[in-house]
Order: sequence, then C-alpha cells, then structure tokens
Amino acid sequence: MRSTAGLVVLPHLPIDRTSRVPLHRQIYDGYRRAILAGLLRPGQRIPSTRALAAELGVSRLPVLGAYEQLLHEGYLDGRRGSGTFVNADLAKQRRRPAAPVRRSARRTTSLTLEELGFRPFRVSSALDQFPRAAWARIVARHAHSMPAELMGYCEPAGYGPLREQIAEYLRTARAVRCEADQVLVVSSSQAALRICAAVLIAPGATVALEEPGYPGARAALAVDGAAMAYVPVDDDGIDVGALAALRTAPRAVYVTPSHQYPLGSSMTAARRMALLAWAARNGSWILEDDYDSEFRYVSRPLGALQGMDAHDRVIYVGTFSKVLFPALRVGYLVVPPQLWEAFVRARESLDIFSPTLYQLAITDFLREGRFARHARRMRDVYLRRRDVLLAGLERHCRGKLTVHNADAGLHVSAWLPRGVSDVDVVKQLEANGLTATALSTCYAAGAARSGLLLGFGGCEERALERATATLGRILAISR
Amino acid sequence: MRSTAGLVVLPHLPIDRTSRVPLHRQIYDGYRRAILAGLLRPGQRIPSTRALAAELGVSRLPVLGAYEQLLHEGYLDGRRGSGTFVNADLAKQRRRPAAPVRRSARRTTSLTLEELGFRPFRVSSALDQFPRAAWARIVARHAHSMPAELMGYCEPAGYGPLREQIAEYLRTARAVRCEADQVLVVSSSQAALRICAAVLIAPGATVALEEPGYPGARAALAVDGAAMAYVPVDDDGIDVGALAALRTAPRAVYVTPSHQYPLGSSMTAARRMALLAWAARNGSWILEDDYDSEFRYVSRPLGALQGMDAHDRVIYVGTFSKVLFPALRVGYLVVPPQLWEAFVRARESLDIFSPTLYQLAITDFLREGRFARHARRMRDVYLRRRDVLLAGLERHCRGKLTVHNADAGLHVSAWLPRGVSDVDVVKQLEANGLTATALSTCYAAGAARSGLLLGFGGCEERALERATATLGRILAISR
Repeated sequence: MRSTAGLVVLPHLPIDRTSRVPLHRQIYDGYRRAILAGLLRPGQRIPSTRALAAELGVSRLPVLGAYEQLLHEGYLDGRRGSGTFVNADLAKQRRRPAAPVRRSARRTTSLTLEELGFRPFRVSSALDQFPRAAWARIVARHAHSMPAELMGYCEPAGYGPLREQIAEYLRTARAVRCEADQVLVVSSSQAALRICAAVLIAPGATVALEEPGYPGARAALAVDGAAMAYVPVDDDGIDVGALAALRTAPRAVYVTPSHQYPLGSSMTAARRMALLAWAARNGSWILEDDYDSEFRYVSRPLGALQGMDAHDRVIYVGTFSKVLFPALRVGYLVVPPQLWEAFVRARESLDIFSPTLYQLAITDFLREGRFARHARRMRDVYLRRRDVLLAGLERHCRGKLTVHNADAGLHVSAWLPRGVSDVDVVKQLEANGLTATALSTCYAAGAARSGLLLGFGGCEERALERATATLGRILAISR
Repeated sequence: MRSTAGLVVLPHLPIDRTSRVPLHRQIYDGYRRAILAGLLRPGQRIPSTRALAAELGVSRLPVLGAYEQLLHEGYLDGRRGSGTFVNADLAKQRRRPAAPVRRSARRTTSLTLEELGFRPFRVSSALDQFPRAAWARIVARHAHSMPAELMGYCEPAGYGPLREQIAEYLRTARAVRCEADQVLVVSSSQAALRICAAVLIAPGATVALEEPGYPGARAALAVDGAAMAYVPVDDDGIDVGALAALRTAPRAVYVTPSHQYPLGSSMTAARRMALLAWAARNGSWILEDDYDSEFRYVSRPLGALQGMDAHDRVIYVGTFSKVLFPALRVGYLVVPPQLWEAFVRARESLDIFSPTLYQLAITDFLREGRFARHARRMRDVYLRRRDVLLAGLERHCRGKLTVHNADAGLHVSAWLPRGVSDVDVVKQLEANGLTATALSTCYAAGAARSGLLLGFGGCEERALERATATLGRILAISR
C-alpha cells in the first residue's frame, strides 16, 4: 500500500519556509485552495503524510496536523483504509464548472471500430490485415534494447539507416533518383507539405493545386498572404496549358501524377514532360505527392515524375500510412540538393525530429523484406476487394453511376448523373452506416462535378458487396 | 532461399503490353536503364525470375531471356548461388555521381553516445537512468495488442485517456486550471509553439520574447511578415514595464515563468500579476513554456502562471522530453476554450495527429504512477549532480565564474568576468570534450552578457567533477 501511495503525484503546495505562517497552516491552506479551485478533484488520491513530509523535506508533525484538520472539515477522506483521498462528497462544491463537452472530446471517446475506417466505402487501408505480431516483435525488440543515446535528440533529417532504406526502396520501386542524404523523414505527408510551404511559399507567392484535388493539401499549403490557383485536371493529368496561362507563374504546383486524387488517373508521359519543362522554364517547384502508388492493378508504364526530371525541380513526398498504418506518423520527402539545408532547418523548427522507435522499427521492416512482402500481399487483397466492389456496382448501380477510374490505390472514382447531388447521396449513405466521399468536396473553386469516391481497402468483401446493394437502393430514389 | 528472394522489392520496370517491343526486350531494357541510371545499385539483390514473372503476370520465358542477356553482358551477377544481384563490379559505371556528403548526413552516422547528451555540461536529462525495462514492457504490450481501429487515424487533439491523465497531472502538480478537453497532444513543445504561431500570429503582428531567451522559441514563432520584440528579463522575470512600452502591443508574449531560460530565475508573484493584467488589458496572449518545472531543488511558492490567470489569456506548453525522453516526441498544450477549435484545426493541418503507440504507453505510465515515481527519483539524482557541479565550481573556478542560478531544471547559469568571451570558453571546452552553451547565444538583439549554461542532468558525478577542473584550467588562462 505504501508503495502505491508513493506513486501519487505531489500536489502543488505553495510552501514558504521564510513565512511566519506556520507550516501546518500553509499545508492546510494549500490543500483547501487546491480542492476548492478544482485542481484536486473529489475522489483523487493524495500522498500519505509520510510521503508528503519526505517530499517537502519537513517533519511529519505539521503534515499530520494539516491532514487532521482537513479530514475533520470534510475536505479529505481517509476512511477507506487504503490511503487518503479528496472527499468524494465534495463533487458539488467545485468552483469552476466543467467545460462543456466539445465535439472533438466527444468524438475521442465514442469512436467505434467501424467509424475509424472499417465502414464500407471509407478510403482506408486494411488495418486488420497488418502483420501485427511480426511488427510488434520488432517494436518490442527496439524498445527493450534502445541505447540511451537514441533516447535523446536524433537528427532532424531522420535516422541514417532508415534514410538509406527509403532511398533504395524509392530508387528500385519508384524510379526516384535519389541518395539517402536527400531523404528527409517527417511525421506525415501533411507535415511534408507544411515544410514545403514554409520553405518555398512566401506572402505574395502563388501556389497551384489540382482541381479537383486533395483537400488536405490545400490546408497544408495555405500560407498567409499567398494565393492559391486551382488548375483543372483531365484524364492526362493537370492542364499544363492552363498552368502556363496563369497571370502569375506559381512558385510551386502540387500534383499527384501516379494516381490523381480524387479522379484516379495517371499523368501521361507527354503531360509529365510538359510539366517538367514548364517548371524548369519558370523556376517553379513541383510537389509530387506519391501517396498510394504501391497499389496498382493495371500495368504501370511510368515511375515517379521525380525520376524523369533533369533539372531538380521536383520535391517528392511519400508516406508509410498506406502500406503500414496511419498511427505510425512517418512520411518522407526527397529534396533536391539545392534546397536541402533550408528543408532541414524548416523541419527542425517544425518539430525537431520524428520519434526514434518507429524509425528503428521501419528500418528493420524494410531491411528484412517484410515491407515488400506485405505490400505485395496487400495488393492482392485490394485487387480482390476492388473487383468485388466493381462487380457490385455493375450489378446494383448500373445506369445510375459511371465508374471513372479503378486502376490503383484504395478507392474507385465514379460519376453521378447530372442533377444528382453527391452530398445528398453521401448523407443517405451515412444514415445507412456507409462512409463515402462526395467528389464535389474536392473542388475548391466551384463548378464541381457530382460523383463519389468509394473506398474498398479497409472493408471485407461481403460487407462491400452488401454496401453496393445499399448504394443501388439509394441511387434508385435519388433524382 | 526462394522466400528471401520473394522479399525483394519489385524494381520499377516500364512494361507495356500493348507495345510491339517484345517483353524480354522490355525487361532487359528496364533493368539496363535502371542500373545505368543508378536506380539499382551494384550488389543489390533483384527478384528471382520466378518471382518477377509472377509479379508482372507474364510467363517465365521472357524473364529468363532478359536475365540471361543481362548476365551475359555483365549487368547482373548470379554466380553467388543464392540469388541474382546487380554486378558489384559496375560500381564505377554509375552515371549520376553520389551527392557530396553534407553536414547533416555526416552527423547522422558519426554521432557517438557522448555527443548525444552525455558530455559534461550539455543540458540534458539522465537517459541512462530511465526505467527502460518497465517502459519497454508497456510499449511492447500495446504494440502486441493494439486494436486495428487505433492503427488508423486518431483524434487530432490526442488520445482521450491521455488527455485526462495530463489534465489531472497538471492540475495536481502545477496548479494549472484545466479540463481534459483543453489539452492538445502534439509532437513536441516546438510543434506546440508552431501551432501557437499559426493561430495567433499574422503578418504585421508583433511577438514578444524574453531577452535573453530560448533560441528554439525564436525559430518556432517566426512568421513571415511578423515582427519580433525582445524584452529584457531581470531576476523577477520579464520586464512588464518594457513590454507595455513597446510601440505596438504584441499579439503574444513567450515566457518561461517557472524557470527562465537561460538565466534560471522564477517569475515573482508581483511580476506575474502585472503580466496577466497587461495581457488582459491589451487582449494579448501569453505563451507559458513550462519546459522543466518537474525538477526544482528549492521550495516552490508558485504554480503555473496559467493557474493564476482569471481571463483565459495563457496558453500553457509542456513536454515529456525532460521527465521521460526526447525521442518520444510528445508534448502538449493547454488551450483557453475560446481558442480551442482554431488550435485543433492548426494542429490537424500541421501533422494531423501524434503516433498512437506512445500516447497509449504514456497514459499507462502516468496512470500507474510510474511517471510520478520516476520524476521523484530523478529529482534526487539531479540534486546530487547539481551539488557536485556547484562544489566543483566552488573548488576549481572560484573568482573566475559567478553562479547566478541553480534552483531548478537541468542546468546552472553562471556569469563570466567582463572581457572573457563565453564563445571562446565554449570552444576551448569543446576541444576538451565538454559541451557547454554560451549565454551570449541566447541574446537576439545584441548587448549580450558573457556567461555559461552548464548542464548537469545527463552526466555522472565523477565526470562532472573532472569537468569543473578542466573548466577551471581553461578559465585560468582566459583573459
């Protein structure tokens, strides 16, 4: 019991040894005020008299005196036998009312498994398929054996061996031309884009984004005093003509060439060459977000845009959220050499460096080939799920929905008939326990097309098939 | 062997089934180009013919044909028996020269244990004293049992139970007035300040900082188009008169009231009241960085500034880096209710949320009382180390160095005689394997006083005592 009491946090008691107020009175006052102010809560355990006396470096006598008075006046309760507590009956005397429960706080406690990504049509990876046991063994091994020097501050650029592994992976699988010393490990692709914004975009500058595009990129690239230009995409990728016709040449353009978000197309070689030439001509930067390129279900004739660039104008952004899992919070950038120092400084001023344990674990996961094996296995899983989704859409939604692209990634993009509101359809899906994304929410500048993004990665085949039937029923009554 | 080869990352090969170029030729060309471009490196393993054929969904014949030609021409090497590799002899043929080794890359690989925080006088916690086994057990438990829904996206505000634990700890130990739904979990106090900057500071605004002050805060609070005002601190804390006399009332002021960085003083009650009144009058925000308040070696009459504030003008910033360890990357903010939504949005656009595993582990560490016990034990360790440092300075440096403050935290601040350059002394210490901080580097606006910050937390007593002797010798010959 004593050992438990010793684990209680020492309350903040403003003891002043130079004061003429006797110590027992100061201790009494300190507790009384803390309890009335709601700093100590009814039912909360407080230290034993012995522990408190030791902590304060005073004799036990004044502490005993103060506790006795507090017990007598009903502030404390010691009758439970196992320690001393703030009297649970005081609950109504708290001076400061509890803050109202806000949306985010409520969501924290009420999130169910389904809401967190397993609802059909939510764009998510299959977290239930992750090789958790093997991963946990690697994590546990490093947690147990982590040397003290790796518990301190690590390089802002990231753990050296991880950067080597990422560079080799990107060169091999994505034809990215890079060395390890161009790889910057960050906490997510969101953070990667924030760093791009911090380095490249000053007030007065223009950033170009795809329209429709990834809403998260808009938020990440927003800089006070900078302008956003939305450039249409077609099936070949971003419209480089429209980009070149902008009144102010953008300082940077954000693109998703491997798998356009949300529409799903892959940027053609011709469009890539045009984009790279435009960037070289204007001294603009290309931010290439290769967010889910590991999963592709048709042949892939083109690697990363970065690998085709002869002028070092591309900053490549990737993440482990899709192949591994989002709660890792590990992403990376490949930075042209001339920007390296500025990027490292920006990364350092953002949050200094990324947690070391996961960097060690991912290094092993890559080095031991587990990453490649898992990605390969998941591609097969996703391919089957995609096919179930497509078959279900064909069966239940024919004529009411046109699949636009299903070549890659974790979602299918589809058009709705003119006049059918995608936001309304999404609301009705929501009422049926299904979480899709309305295509129109991916447009920033208006003139949105109505459509749906239907995720299939995080959901089992039978649930997907059922979900397409529900969607069919909803579409049948949508005008 | 086959299982190993199956773990190799599939190289990016631009195979086009619609092309008239035969498949074996496309595979040959793909490899050849990738090798010549340095995407595949000499000695790197490539997939077996069987694995590649399966991956590409083609028969093994064209793959065998391509591999044979590549082996024949010396691009590949299969003689090792255990697989096929890019020929190691090709090392000199790489087209793109390796990028020059840059400073950060070099540092990654050469950092030794001592450089990473165990050198005497470096300001650091005692990472070797951390209860790693108990911590690793908690981490391993959560890694093994983490439910799939916690592997996905978590609340930007942080894991609910952790926010509850932090709120209780801050109320109890620091007299912070807060509810869990004001606690925002972030990746570090650095990130916390970045979020403050994003929400509170627009171009044209002024931010006030302590002079001398924490250089990391300057970097984190820098916003394009905003001005920095440096306000002197004396032994009572920041000079509120000087703050009030600034031509433009700052939108926010950054302070370290519990333990001023770098000088070490604690802000007096009178100064606190004046600062809070000033903030309420001007509608300014106070950013309270309580970075190492857990370690205090003299009585502590005052809790957090936040707890004394009746007008919700204080944003409280804390970190687990000092009591636990920096490689965790977990810090937190306590946000006034009226700013909550804006802070959550800014946090989300910065990096969405913090890694979940460590949030789970810290929750248990707090809940099980291990945090309190460890903090208490470390305070005793640090007290002994501080006393050894002070005794050594008295013995070896008397008359050449004046200790200014040693009341709290992990470092002692000391003045050097006028005319002695602290930067020179630090350089000489460095040459002797000792890493101190020159006080003058904490001044942003000139008129710096010469002094040293001598860390004692991360260094054993005997090494500290030896280090003071070295410092004494250096000071004896410094003019």
